[in-house]
Amino acid sequence: MRGGPGQVPSFEFELVGRDRATGARAGLFRTPHGVVATPVFMPVGTQATVKAVCPEELRRAGAQIVLANTYHLYLRPGSRTVAELGGLHRFMGWGGPILTDSGGFQVFSLSQPGRGESGRAEGLVEVDEDGATFRSHLDGSLRRFTPELAVEVQEELGADVIMAFDECSSTAGGYDEARRGMERTHRWAERCRARWSELEAGKRDRPPQALFGIVQGGAFRDLRRASAEFVAGLALPGVAIGGESIGYSKRLTRDILEWVADLLPEGRPRYAMGVGEPDDFFAVVEGGVDMFDSVLPTRMARNGTLLTARGRLRVVNAEHAADPRPIEPGCDCYTCARFSRAYLRHLFKSQCLLAYRLATLHNLRFCLRLVGQIREAILVGTFAELRDEYLRQVAADRT
Amino acid sequence: MRGGPGQVPSFEFELVGRDRATGARAGLFRTPHGVVATPVFMPVGTQATVKAVCPEELRRAGAQIVLANTYHLYLRPGSRTVAELGGLHRFMGWGGPILTDSGGFQVFSLSQPGRGESGRAEGLVEVDEDGATFRSHLDGSLRRFTPELAVEVQEELGADVIMAFDECSSTAGGYDEARRGMERTHRWAERCRARWSELEAGKRDRPPQALFGIVQGGAFRDLRRASAEFVAGLALPGVAIGGESIGYSKRLTRDILEWVADLLPEGRPRYAMGVGEPDDFFAVVEGGVDMFDSVLPTRMARNGTLLTARGRLRVVNAEHAADPRPIEPGCDCYTCARFSRAYLRHLFKSQCLLAYRLATLHNLRFCLRLVGQIREAILVGTFAELRDEYLRQVAADRT
Repeated sequence: MRGGPGQVPSFEFELVGRDRATGARAGLFRTPHGVVATPVFMPVGTQATVKAVCPEELRRAGAQIVLANTYHLYLRPGSRTVAELGGLHRFMGWGGPILTDSGGFQVFSLSQPGRGESGRAEGLVEVDEDGATFRSHLDGSLRRFTPELAVEVQEELGADVIMAFDECSSTAGGYDEARRGMERTHRWAERCRARWSELEAGKRDRPPQALFGIVQGGAFRDLRRASAEFVAGLALPGVAIGGESIGYSKRLTRDILEWVADLLPEGRPRYAMGVGEPDDFFAVVEGGVDMFDSVLPTRMARNGTLLTARGRLRVVNAEHAADPRPIEPGCDCYTCARFSRAYLRHLFKSQCLLAYRLATLHNLRFCLRLVGQIREAILVGTFAELRDEYLRQVAADRT
Repeated sequence: MRGGPGQVPSFEFELVGRDRATGARAGLFRTPHGVVATPVFMPVGTQATVKAVCPEELRRAGAQIVLANTYHLYLRPGSRTVAELGGLHRFMGWGGPILTDSGGFQVFSLSQPGRGESGRAEGLVEVDEDGATFRSHLDGSLRRFTPELAVEVQEELGADVIMAFDECSSTAGGYDEARRGMERTHRWAERCRARWSELEAGKRDRPPQALFGIVQGGAFRDLRRASAEFVAGLALPGVAIGGESIGYSKRLTRDILEWVADLLPEGRPRYAMGVGEPDDFFAVVEGGVDMFDSVLPTRMARNGTLLTARGRLRVVNAEHAADPRPIEPGCDCYTCARFSRAYLRHLFKSQCLLAYRLATLHNLRFCLRLVGQIREAILVGTFAELRDEYLRQVAADRT
């Protein structure tokens, strides 16, 4: 795979290993800010910060690439401001690769009544052929996103990988709604590609960006396959699989990946948006996915739920009050090397800020290490063993 | 100065420099967990954590010794639990010296109606000759502290320096109340010393602890002098100057230090409790103080107020929205080396947890560096120049 329209080889995706029994694959994704070894779990830094941790900690935990949210940064501090400050990498102090979403998911989810952070009912988003009008969840102000603007905003933010603006319609809406949303997503993807090509062609000092298209089509096999075919045909640097269900319904995520697998271009990275829990990592990797992200591990951490190879640990539970053991004996994370469950519980009970950081560092390290092990297993041919062993251990602990 | 009753030379205080014009002095305070170069600013870790920062960051910011609060840790997680987990040092992952207060200040302030964290009126503390009965600010349960218990709790916590249990009476109460509080504090100090001696004598594996007495006497010169004389006569390893006013009224703090200076033993460390703002550092050091602590720099940081040599900077102000400069150009703190005012403002506006950490790291480094410079100036004979230059710059910026 080659980079943007300018033929600058800043982006390259190379497959370096495959599992024989499944679709699992290992690759190297070269970007202007470094190489990403795939499959890769991408921590989410919604507001240009992975909540509670700093860039050095991310790096030490094994993060290779982080996400930031276009919708949030467009509203605050504004993409123009970020550009004036030297772009997202400098702004947030993260020198590695960054991916921004298009804002589509947030526009369609945060603009629902009662779901905004301001607590007021902002009113539904209004979608027309040209774009989407919505109210800011911050101040209720009326805003409008078009495919072109979504690309321009992402160009200002300056991430390495940017996403096409998609209509993320509800799975509940039925076949016709899913089809209409998918078709509009396709037309929008073409407009995104056109605007991206213009911007790339006119670039001088700023590094190139890779635009990914997004496969939609709800819960319907034929729509998903049609969408995969269409997005593959756009010949963009990468393909994402999106939608309300991806990452939220385990079964459907697995099905969708299976439906589209043979239609996606082999030599481009595949990104499953919003996946998920560690248990899902194996399934999406088996489905041929190279990149995935989720707020779950970090959000759970801030709520005191710690991930371990034996399942989840609620560190705030009374049973840990005097437990001198680390969250997970043998874990190589910052937290487990230094602090006891008792201390972490104390910090949570006292609502001390360090609690959220220490818990986040553990969960991030857990996910990043697990995906690293998955990659290693693909390369040496032990993927099935690793998966079966992992899932058996988790299942054993749950019984 | 020698350590506890066991004559183990684990504590030693050595004066290594003096300012000729003022009472300012530089020393080395040896403890079982390391040497503290004085004068020293001590960050406050109320709940066995300096809010928002981790031990490595404290160390890198230049912290030598940290405080923890006996009252809070007694209530949660409990000093017995901390002891079972190997003591405060291991519990909080801080290998350097630690000082715990006696709980007196919190008992008398947090137990006032309307000041508890739980928001309910807990009722006044009841003081009798034997001790103080109060309601926990956490659950309203009835608790009782005696001088002996305060020492025992601090022995369980295991800090290097522990404080006598004092009655911290209100300055508003007048002369007679201040005198009665002071006299009771003296009787309690003797009881603390007796219990501490017993515990020290019986120690085997646990390192020795240094008990400091506390000078009280409110805003009254003759009481303060009487108290200083009394506490000096106890021949404890160190002397603290306490009271509601210390650190809260700049003028009175300065007066009190002047009243007692000639009565305090030269060869023991002097600790001014709860001081304060960087502007106060010079005054207390001039008053012969070797150690001081305050929650102000870290609390201000979490509210978005940053300390600089040119006064305070409200980083959340709109003027900083696109400012690429660090908080304080030239500052060697972690935050200033990496992040812009614009980014810090964005984190505060978005209520991202990293904001509180980055701001805290700057304010801590500012205070610790300033006190380091003060020490250096005492040693090389330029204390007056440094003070005048610092205060002139701050004053110039305020006009």
